[in-house]
Amino acid sequence: MSLHGKSLIEGTPLPTSTKTFTAFDPRKGVSLEPNFHEANAADADVALNSAQAAFAAFRQKNSGERAIFLETIAAEIMALGDELLERAHQETGLLLDRLTGERGRTVGQLRLFAEVLREGSWCDVRIDTALPERTPLPRPDLRRILVPVGPVIVFGASNFPLAFSVAGGDTASALAAGCPVIVKGHPAHPGTSELVAGAVIKAAQSCGLPPGVFSLLQGSSHEIGTALVRHPKTRAVGFTGSHRGGRALLDAAAARPEPIPVFAEMGSLNPIFILPGALQERGAQIAEGLKNSITMGAGQFCTKPGLTFAIGGTDLEAFKSTIEPAIRSVAPGTMLHPGIRDAYVSSVNAALNTKGVNVLARSHAEADAGLTQGQAVLLDVSSDTFLAQPCLREEIFGPAGILVEARDMADLLQVAESLNGQLTASIHGTEADLDGAQELLYVLERKAGRLIINGFPTGVEVSPAMQHGGPYPATTDSRFTSVGTAAILRWVRPVCYQNFPAAALPPELRNENPLGLMRQINGKLGRESV
Amino acid sequence: MSLHGKSLIEGTPLPTSTKTFTAFDPRKGVSLEPNFHEANAADADVALNSAQAAFAAFRQKNSGERAIFLETIAAEIMALGDELLERAHQETGLLLDRLTGERGRTVGQLRLFAEVLREGSWCDVRIDTALPERTPLPRPDLRRILVPVGPVIVFGASNFPLAFSVAGGDTASALAAGCPVIVKGHPAHPGTSELVAGAVIKAAQSCGLPPGVFSLLQGSSHEIGTALVRHPKTRAVGFTGSHRGGRALLDAAAARPEPIPVFAEMGSLNPIFILPGALQERGAQIAEGLKNSITMGAGQFCTKPGLTFAIGGTDLEAFKSTIEPAIRSVAPGTMLHPGIRDAYVSSVNAALNTKGVNVLARSHAEADAGLTQGQAVLLDVSSDTFLAQPCLREEIFGPAGILVEARDMADLLQVAESLNGQLTASIHGTEADLDGAQELLYVLERKAGRLIINGFPTGVEVSPAMQHGGPYPATTDSRFTSVGTAAILRWVRPVCYQNFPAAALPPELRNENPLGLMRQINGKLGRESV
Repeated sequence: MSLHGKSLIEGTPLPTSTKTFTAFDPRKGVSLEPNFHEANAADADVALNSAQAAFAAFRQKNSGERAIFLETIAAEIMALGDELLERAHQETGLLLDRLTGERGRTVGQLRLFAEVLREGSWCDVRIDTALPERTPLPRPDLRRILVPVGPVIVFGASNFPLAFSVAGGDTASALAAGCPVIVKGHPAHPGTSELVAGAVIKAAQSCGLPPGVFSLLQGSSHEIGTALVRHPKTRAVGFTGSHRGGRALLDAAAARPEPIPVFAEMGSLNPIFILPGALQERGAQIAEGLKNSITMGAGQFCTKPGLTFAIGGTDLEAFKSTIEPAIRSVAPGTMLHPGIRDAYVSSVNAALNTKGVNVLARSHAEADAGLTQGQAVLLDVSSDTFLAQPCLREEIFGPAGILVEARDMADLLQVAESLNGQLTASIHGTEADLDGAQELLYVLERKAGRLIINGFPTGVEVSPAMQHGGPYPATTDSRFTSVGTAAILRWVRPVCYQNFPAAALPPELRNENPLGLMRQINGKLGRESV
Repeated sequence: MSLHGKSLIEGTPLPTSTKTFTAFDPRKGVSLEPNFHEANAADADVALNSAQAAFAAFRQKNSGERAIFLETIAAEIMALGDELLERAHQETGLLLDRLTGERGRTVGQLRLFAEVLREGSWCDVRIDTALPERTPLPRPDLRRILVPVGPVIVFGASNFPLAFSVAGGDTASALAAGCPVIVKGHPAHPGTSELVAGAVIKAAQSCGLPPGVFSLLQGSSHEIGTALVRHPKTRAVGFTGSHRGGRALLDAAAARPEPIPVFAEMGSLNPIFILPGALQERGAQIAEGLKNSITMGAGQFCTKPGLTFAIGGTDLEAFKSTIEPAIRSVAPGTMLHPGIRDAYVSSVNAALNTKGVNVLARSHAEADAGLTQGQAVLLDVSSDTFLAQPCLREEIFGPAGILVEARDMADLLQVAESLNGQLTASIHGTEADLDGAQELLYVLERKAGRLIINGFPTGVEVSPAMQHGGPYPATTDSRFTSVGTAAILRWVRPVCYQNFPAAALPPELRNENPLGLMRQINGKLGRESV
């Protein structure tokens, strides 16, 4: 299968502009064939118009039909076989094992949303039956359900070319909700994007869906992204990437005549607090876990722990002597892209040039810039330095961490209170440590979407209870998650049907409850019919 | 009980600035005693700091304790007796019967949220149990629950001095969620606000809550509102009022370093579509209902039907001859405030001065401006005029409606498609009409939060299935409602606890399910223990 390098709009490869860009093999330091055409604002307009047209038909498909669509996408992605993995490997430098796992996660979450649709209770049906005799006024019959919002724009992430990209969690959850999707492909893996988009389009065709239900726009410029967010037919935006990128989209969406929601996941520092008992009891084990969590995948995870806090003393000195050689022995990792590698190197240098910052440990082997490598590094600062230097609160995307030494628990609490919003926050502690950490837990609950005891934040489960979203600047809307089944709630809004005849109601709202949903009837939850 | 005219911050009347304003009796055309002091940015800062301090204690109260607090507020409001109703009557011109009903609604919704808290399942608990043996990676124990976001600012509305004001739906739902509330009182009924705030403060005291859990800031300027929205400790905003006011707050919130959600309900045109069969079969009955819905309470409801669409012909001529005398006989109503009356008169004049707009009917009696009266009026335009004149899409707050004559069903569909977001949309139709109206229903579902068959939009039930919120510009966030039990979802965000020891979990998340909640365990809904 050869790549055509075009955007896929309404199921068709369109040449779009003559301006092109290429992918890059970070492991070899060379550009990859073919040229990819940059989509422009006119392409965005075509894609949105066709998405809007498709929405009318797509929203009328029932949950079972949408479930089959998701499962068909999963099957078509698997049918791409090794070619997909090989192209993704070339474009990202990620190893085939990792990509095989990521493909499993991607098709797994498509199938998980199919299950959610078949169970069906996610749409939060509420029925208040009429009270015609009530005085002074009768109560009408009211029936509420969640309905899809309309065309959704998805911005793929660089670090998960499958699971957070063209057919990743944002796309899967939006299609599950009944929203057409337009993906702005990440420019670092356009070939992977083209292959996966082809799979989605084949699935739409074989499920008899209108072609506007899915489009892929290729592009490396900010302009195409902004044009998509500003388009009057766009109803919501999903994004995974940098704070700068996410905030720009949020601001563009907020400035529209008709503002729309932007769900941007913009990374995080994922602070870890090591309490004294745990540091004493199993400092070496925690050091090993921390080293792994910081350096896994060359640190290119939004849940990489960028900050670790502990109280100074002999136990912390022992911890440092354990982690120092562990970090030193980490081989420089291939990063996703020279741009990301350059940003990593300058972020580390900016931190190093900050007064009071020391290098605790660093990969012994040199990084080869031509092969897009980055060294692991662990920096060491006092809590006073941390509180005084705002630049230490900026995410360093790559295998770097900062160890912050506090004086005592009060000092730990103060640094915790000073933190911005986070995706996660972790505490390592013995039972006795945790008994005394209630206040710290309350502070961190205000700061983070996921709180972890005696674990590390990397590894985000795709499941009903996952929360991948925290207070700003971790995400733009901490009321929602971008991972797990609750992610579908980003793409819907409630509608109440008042005094509708049975024939005009969707099956979810009918008296007899033909789908067997859990519903709230006059305030009581149950699977009964009315 | 005499009014002190001061803001109530941390449970104490504070003098704030020396700048003052007064309330006004619209039925007599005179100012009312006493002077009310304008709160300023320094007061906002004190209120937010005390709210933030109170949050730590308030969020740790369990659901039962919060329920008692809400019920105690309801009891304290009732204990204010006739004095409250009389002051509200003086300040708004609303009649005592109406205000008695509104007080019932206000205490009713406080008690309804207490019931929601006692039932408890609203907090959407999801538990994924650990899978320690899973390969390649074990699954940790994940438990998710909704937690309060923190201090909330509530802007009271002028047209519901009790139910959408100091202890109205926004305040009740935010306190239910566990958020401290700061109300910016509406300047048209400061005495009513002071009385109700006193009741809330008494309830907080008798429930042993920290005083920062509730404050009332009095003020007539935009500055104090903006200062509250911009304050770094503010976490969310509820507003009911004009589009201009709501959008200004939304923009201020979006421009913060850390943007926060604004839930602004900004009114609506609430279109009504009368289909041909219904027009023929029961035009007279619909005319009577429409007249009542437009003129009830001098048209000062956010669900007042401002636009009515029907197809021209003899049935519509008959309809017009029925509604014309009905509107003519409506006595001019007392409006809430001279400012609102002036805005009403100029909005009607602006519509009248638009090319192609005719007066179909108008109150026979003159309106007395000194007594703040407004005449009922029904305007008449063609669909071409409606499509050509954007000014006809602006809400006229008061007893005015516009009848739009379409040529045929295709024309009706076109005007429906041209509508902005609405709180409600209604269709009057026979069974045969509705069978042919599927496309119209789909269009209107994209436009409105509540769809009504053979009814009128005024009258908003406070119940689980209500949706009071539609696409922009009806509200700033159509994913939420400001009326009904789901309103609590505006003030919470999910948090996931990973690998927490049982002792550190809130009761909602414990294995044994001590509160008997409906929970999702490994994706299955039920009230079982783990």
